[in-house]
Amino acid sequence: MTIKSHIRTVPHYPHHGIMFRDITTLLKDPIGLRTTIQEIAKRYSNVEIDKVIGIESRGFIIGAPVAYQLGKGFVPIRKRNKLPAETIGRDYQLEYGSDRIEIHVDAIQPGERVLLVDDLIATGGTAEAAVGLIRDMGGEVVECCFVIDLPDVGGKARLENLGCPVFALCEFEGD
Amino acid sequence: MTIKSHIRTVPHYPHHGIMFRDITTLLKDPIGLRTTIQEIAKRYSNVEIDKVIGIESRGFIIGAPVAYQLGKGFVPIRKRNKLPAETIGRDYQLEYGSDRIEIHVDAIQPGERVLLVDDLIATGGTAEAAVGLIRDMGGEVVECCFVIDLPDVGGKARLENLGCPVFALCEFEGD
Repeated sequence: MTIKSHIRTVPHYPHHGIMFRDITTLLKDPIGLRTTIQEIAKRYSNVEIDKVIGIESRGFIIGAPVAYQLGKGFVPIRKRNKLPAETIGRDYQLEYGSDRIEIHVDAIQPGERVLLVDDLIATGGTAEAAVGLIRDMGGEVVECCFVIDLPDVGGKARLENLGCPVFALCEFEGD
Repeated sequence: MTIKSHIRTVPHYPHHGIMFRDITTLLKDPIGLRTTIQEIAKRYSNVEIDKVIGIESRGFIIGAPVAYQLGKGFVPIRKRNKLPAETIGRDYQLEYGSDRIEIHVDAIQPGERVLLVDDLIATGGTAEAAVGLIRDMGGEVVECCFVIDLPDVGGKARLENLGCPVFALCEFEGD
């Protein structure tokens, strides 16, 4: 199977003109889910990693099974006020307004090597804030890993400019 | 290891008087994550299941690796307006006000056998709505599976009254 062929495009969601790439059609297929997780895990099977971090909430669906398959712990990065214990956060810009992501202060230790996972990279604003949070805590981002890259939107280049390698299982152009 | 001993209690979150049971301390531990997923998957290894459904968003962290380990597809139930394609939804009551969960109309087929997964069952309002959604689509809920049950709050009995068996890895009393 190819991962890309199992991803559904929903036109004009959430706004007119946006071609939304929907991974639910990939994930509901048992071979689709298994192939996605194994393709990612295979890439990191011989890489030294301490934690896998997923970004709320589609990043949880990919990141948690990757952590499980790699035999590592999983840490969530969440939207503001969703984590119960002490957190640090970062604000980041959206097209209209701003948002904030947070992580528990005891989630990673200084020097730990982190694999950052989300479903999709577009402009890279959320991922950039997540990389910042991990570095604020003294963690090292080994790589940022996505199911989908939208290369025309520039997020991959933005993360690489921060010194973060980026990997994606597939690309959709023309976004 | 015991799963319960790895769950942190955060007093007075999100409101005064609430003892919040925090699974992030369990999940960040590689043995904790692995044991949690394997204990659940072991229970269903010889049960006929077509799909694993997780409830946004902590249910994604548990449900997706369980689906992966069982070799099944994973389907998300999300809060209102988060799924891109055609959905059906159900409203349910909260302590103050109401909320709504939704599922894609093509996520499950009539007659499919579903394992419903979330991190915790308290009053069971969200899980009850999820069971209703699955049944609205003609699916059969084989069991509702949680990491944590708060038996004093009555959610387990509420689901059992609907004819849904309930399983939880551990209990916290006095809530």
